[in-house]
Amino acid sequence: MQTRKVDVAIIGAGTAGMTAYRSALQHTQNVVVIESGVYGTTCARVGCMPSKLLIAAAEISHQIDQAAQFGINVSGKVIDGDKVMQRVKSERDRFVGFVEEAVENWPSEHKLIGQAKFLSEHELQIDDHTRVIARNIVIAAGTRPAVPGPWYALEDRLLINDDVFSWNSLPESIAVVGTGVIGMEISQALSRLGVRTHLFGVGDRFGPISDPVINDEVNKILASELTLSSNAAVETVAKTDSGIEITYQENDELKTGNYDYLLAATGRRSNLDSLNFKAAGVVLNDQGFPNFNLATGQIEDSSLFIAGDVSNAHPLLHEAADDGRIAGDNAGRFPDIKARPRRAPLSIIFTDPQITLVGARHSELLESEIDFAVGEASFEDQGRSRVIAKNKGIIRVYGEQSSGLFLGAEMVGPAAEHLGHLLSWSVQHRLTVQQMLDSPFYHPVIEEGLRTALRHLNLDLKMGPVPVERCLDCGPGA
Amino acid sequence: MQTRKVDVAIIGAGTAGMTAYRSALQHTQNVVVIESGVYGTTCARVGCMPSKLLIAAAEISHQIDQAAQFGINVSGKVIDGDKVMQRVKSERDRFVGFVEEAVENWPSEHKLIGQAKFLSEHELQIDDHTRVIARNIVIAAGTRPAVPGPWYALEDRLLINDDVFSWNSLPESIAVVGTGVIGMEISQALSRLGVRTHLFGVGDRFGPISDPVINDEVNKILASELTLSSNAAVETVAKTDSGIEITYQENDELKTGNYDYLLAATGRRSNLDSLNFKAAGVVLNDQGFPNFNLATGQIEDSSLFIAGDVSNAHPLLHEAADDGRIAGDNAGRFPDIKARPRRAPLSIIFTDPQITLVGARHSELLESEIDFAVGEASFEDQGRSRVIAKNKGIIRVYGEQSSGLFLGAEMVGPAAEHLGHLLSWSVQHRLTVQQMLDSPFYHPVIEEGLRTALRHLNLDLKMGPVPVERCLDCGPGA
Repeated sequence: MQTRKVDVAIIGAGTAGMTAYRSALQHTQNVVVIESGVYGTTCARVGCMPSKLLIAAAEISHQIDQAAQFGINVSGKVIDGDKVMQRVKSERDRFVGFVEEAVENWPSEHKLIGQAKFLSEHELQIDDHTRVIARNIVIAAGTRPAVPGPWYALEDRLLINDDVFSWNSLPESIAVVGTGVIGMEISQALSRLGVRTHLFGVGDRFGPISDPVINDEVNKILASELTLSSNAAVETVAKTDSGIEITYQENDELKTGNYDYLLAATGRRSNLDSLNFKAAGVVLNDQGFPNFNLATGQIEDSSLFIAGDVSNAHPLLHEAADDGRIAGDNAGRFPDIKARPRRAPLSIIFTDPQITLVGARHSELLESEIDFAVGEASFEDQGRSRVIAKNKGIIRVYGEQSSGLFLGAEMVGPAAEHLGHLLSWSVQHRLTVQQMLDSPFYHPVIEEGLRTALRHLNLDLKMGPVPVERCLDCGPGA
Repeated sequence: MQTRKVDVAIIGAGTAGMTAYRSALQHTQNVVVIESGVYGTTCARVGCMPSKLLIAAAEISHQIDQAAQFGINVSGKVIDGDKVMQRVKSERDRFVGFVEEAVENWPSEHKLIGQAKFLSEHELQIDDHTRVIARNIVIAAGTRPAVPGPWYALEDRLLINDDVFSWNSLPESIAVVGTGVIGMEISQALSRLGVRTHLFGVGDRFGPISDPVINDEVNKILASELTLSSNAAVETVAKTDSGIEITYQENDELKTGNYDYLLAATGRRSNLDSLNFKAAGVVLNDQGFPNFNLATGQIEDSSLFIAGDVSNAHPLLHEAADDGRIAGDNAGRFPDIKARPRRAPLSIIFTDPQITLVGARHSELLESEIDFAVGEASFEDQGRSRVIAKNKGIIRVYGEQSSGLFLGAEMVGPAAEHLGHLLSWSVQHRLTVQQMLDSPFYHPVIEEGLRTALRHLNLDLKMGPVPVERCLDCGPGA
């Protein structure tokens, strides 16, 4: 058993841990990063990157199916599951490789492999080989998939999204349980790649969407292209000779389905519980998490900082990276800590059409004291969306009465990832709805659908005129 | 011969004329719109809309050709030219229909058909049937294609882009002369739709691009997928039994090419020359255009206003619509005219990858007194672009030394139409490069390529740190 005395110990070498490390180095070289598993981030290994690769293949397959309406006839489309997964994995490995390479270049005295357990606010036990005494500690231990216990009886027929990305080919069929971000993205992609897919959800709720109009539209869109049980209670799961059987309640009926695999997209769970965190002497809230300051990363007024998915605040790469930068910097400069303004909220779900949530959510506004108005536009008849046959979806934008300030939006529709950036930058820079309307909108673009929604919002705010039907100054089919 | 006395006469019922009409109506009902040809805007009939429809088909065809690398095999692709053009035309007709419908609903006393000629500042002669005496006149007469005279000898083998969109099918081959916006868009689309296409330009210049780095990249990209003579002098064109023959000088060699058709994409010419404008008594500048105020539309201090493409200022639908709104409003409220701030400049070219120009152009900055820095990023290794196999192109962003103000950008690359909006809004709201970097960038998105360029710009402005290679806090493959 060795003992290390460091200025900053960082638990976890994922996205948040890596940025925390780089920030802490600005203050001290006496830093150690403790990693319990393999190097490489959730994002690169099993998250953003491989899912986007699978979606890219699915999108191509879907485009081919749409080709006839453009006058392009395709015969003999064969989805080569081996080749699909080959590209997903080789590109994924390339991205993971960059992360591993970065870690390899760290001095060896900055790395420690093992499971960290708190002994006190300033002491960590790493497996049974090292005791780390740290002036400050950054907790960036990430998450792991959360799977109902009984499902483990399915053995190799139970998948979490990690497993999907190690497939050598595509299965014939799959049950995806969970209509969160991962459940929606993966089930649509697999369905478009020819896998018989059944998506199960509870309470007709989809991911983090809070606006009921958008939630309903997503329900309608997904139901139109895959088998969707958006309000079902999975009763039992069982392994069969050739796969699995699910028994579930839906519309007061007990039903049964058979599939090759069950993908548990039932969320991820913080690794905080594996750290013996109670020994740090911090009070936890009802959800079992410590209270911390988003602008500093500091847990109460302790020498402890928290960053990334482990905090349960916002499991998004760009937020984790900011968390890490802030927490690592403050752990390094402690006690002279600094608050850093956070970016405007932005979430994107890479279904087709995509989903984006920006700024204040509809549910937050309803719960708040804010007097707000809503503008809405459909993409069904939006010119450019129709030109490219992507005319599905709805956008809802929210603005504050009296001030005309743009507050946020929820949307399912074409190019939502790009509109999400435009809208979150507008929240960040505190634009009014009128200032947004005064900005350039080219023609013919999908952004013109956003403009229609903003015009309706401005009317509802009593700050703009009645929008012109089939607006000609917007250009034909704006 | 009848005589009409009106408050506002508007020459032209295109985009600018239609918005001018609607604005003028806010002040007076005694308005007349004079149209010399058919109703329906350039945008709807032969411009933005049909070209985007053709491009949509070409994009699908191209995607199918890319499918194998994603693991999707297609054994037979047949481009059904009849069906391609059927969709282009039926959708186009639908958009034109909306425009025509709007005009049909105008009161008949607001419409006059015929060629307008100025008799004086306040008098117009319409064909030989009507004399219009107007308190104020809005000139929104639009443009027509400009084609070298001798080419008319090709008769039905000479096409302007108007003709392309009335095709019933696709030809075997075509020579496209002109590397402006239309030449680039149409030649790439036709080439991707299986038409043997030869694009001719002069001086290796592409559209309005002014940054030599971007211009070179576009040259390279286009040359990689179609026959490109980007610096050729067309000497003679002749009709043959089966099509046309072009003789041209290229690299000091006289060459010959044979094609079904010649598409003259040699620009458009203002219709001002058809209005006997000299009778209005306005001094013209060297280019033959009147001096006018962009913020009011007013020609010098006269009772005349100008709007849309006819002015040669910026042949873009959204600018023409603003022009019309401003000019129509001021013609109605004359002499109490108002200045309206214009939107930040934004141009988009719908090639693949797309091209966008935002804010101040590189050439304008070089000619100005502004001390500026440049940030650059390639999309070749940009994560998301690579995931979707759209990793081509370069972005260059410009910022002002000392203030850090973001000035503009030129780009060829994926999703440029969307990045163009984000960037032009940033110019419009006078963001600094640092404020842009402080805004949300999701992961993995194409916007991360923009962020890389902005980081390099901020470094060059001495306002930011050295960007981290393969930046991990940007996420793997940002």
